[in-house]
Amino acid sequence: MKTVDLTSGLQDDLRACAHEMADAARAAILPLFRSGLASDNKDAGGFDPVTEADRAAERAMRGVLARLRPQDAILGEEYGTSDGSTGLEWVLDPIDGTRGFISGTPTWGVLISVRDAGGPLYGVIDQPYIGERFEGGFGCSVLNGPLGERPLGVSAVTALDQATILTTFPEVGSQAEQEAFHRVAQSCKLTRYGMDCYGYALLAAGQVDLVIEAGLSAYDIQAPIAVIEAAGGMLTNWQGGLAYEGGTALAAATPELHAAAMALLNG
Amino acid sequence: MKTVDLTSGLQDDLRACAHEMADAARAAILPLFRSGLASDNKDAGGFDPVTEADRAAERAMRGVLARLRPQDAILGEEYGTSDGSTGLEWVLDPIDGTRGFISGTPTWGVLISVRDAGGPLYGVIDQPYIGERFEGGFGCSVLNGPLGERPLGVSAVTALDQATILTTFPEVGSQAEQEAFHRVAQSCKLTRYGMDCYGYALLAAGQVDLVIEAGLSAYDIQAPIAVIEAAGGMLTNWQGGLAYEGGTALAAATPELHAAAMALLNG
Repeated sequence: MKTVDLTSGLQDDLRACAHEMADAARAAILPLFRSGLASDNKDAGGFDPVTEADRAAERAMRGVLARLRPQDAILGEEYGTSDGSTGLEWVLDPIDGTRGFISGTPTWGVLISVRDAGGPLYGVIDQPYIGERFEGGFGCSVLNGPLGERPLGVSAVTALDQATILTTFPEVGSQAEQEAFHRVAQSCKLTRYGMDCYGYALLAAGQVDLVIEAGLSAYDIQAPIAVIEAAGGMLTNWQGGLAYEGGTALAAATPELHAAAMALLNG
Repeated sequence: MKTVDLTSGLQDDLRACAHEMADAARAAILPLFRSGLASDNKDAGGFDPVTEADRAAERAMRGVLARLRPQDAILGEEYGTSDGSTGLEWVLDPIDGTRGFISGTPTWGVLISVRDAGGPLYGVIDQPYIGERFEGGFGCSVLNGPLGERPLGVSAVTALDQATILTTFPEVGSQAEQEAFHRVAQSCKLTRYGMDCYGYALLAAGQVDLVIEAGLSAYDIQAPIAVIEAAGGMLTNWQGGLAYEGGTALAAATPELHAAAMALLNG
């Protein structure tokens, strides 16, 4: 990768491509959602199901890229890396929240982002069943969903005791990570669980104030980074560093909240 | 209340009335969802917000009843009881999952049910933002949502180690109730949190196999009972008794799963 000169024409092309990919993923996934399809298990020790929907959606998105952006690189959860020559890389997680998906919850999502050497430039968090698409980057920060189009924007909450915090599983990650999370959660007004990637979208929409996760991969987090940063929020790892490559994630509506949460995570 | 002779004409009228109430509640609530409205707090010690949407939706539903079923009794979360003379009582929770609502999650719901002296006869779990309506009773067990109309029906899972279990908060209720829940959860394949009343709907749709909650009120549970029983499942309290009046709830897809969970809850 390199740093890419992003003309407005190129930005428009990339956005249009991302929407076409998200549409293609929706069409691939929805016939399989709540279809009773058996999931297989790629981690014999844990519980990390992959559905046929996951693979079908990534193939559909790669098909769009092959047609519209054949020279860009790709990193996908299901089919790995494909080299490119433009300096741009698409990062794809066809179904983030597969355990939510197999439980029928509407909290999983399709994650699409594009980055250059400087990091994520633009991202989409799409929830096909609700028909909700959160996007951020290239000067845009918007939600299209059941109530039409609305601007995204994080909350102004700065104090932990006024904050709503989300994570997906109360176990979070390792035992130490779990304890660190709960140090923060105990200082917050309200703790909610179970939202998968939808939690990041809710933060970008100003509905919740903190999202803390651990054990992430690069394809899990790049679209949330782009969407949250475009909405005015912050997303780093638990040490305040770049979260692009996965690991831990601390997303906050404001710098004050980010600093207060980080102090407790590392306290 | 008394036991009511439910002619098919009366059943049709009651269903039509429930749908009109659910439509009215949607119209009252959706303009306020994610509107940034401040919530007030009816329990100074805990966190039990009531929004204006809650009250507006119950007023809207009571307006429909005043027009279509003025002689039926009403029990509503926000405006209490109204006497009737038909032997039928409507039980209304305009927004079940207010903490989910103020967090922007799509897991809260409008709960509508009608009962006679024998218990809940028919219920609706409506999720206005997704546009999803689960109903059960009077010979009907159906979901209308983004993918059209589909029959509801519970899963055939009989073993805990094959089951997905839901509850909203990992704390569940009291310390003893929390420990009892986690005895069951540790025996299950997958535990998910945060779904509010949507969890019962997912059980009726065959997506999850157990829902266990505590600290419920009568208006929280009567619609789920009707929807789950119509879909072929069971919903009792943790002792296997009637759950109509609130308290604890154990919803299961099959009798075998219900018995296995109940043994651990009381073990």
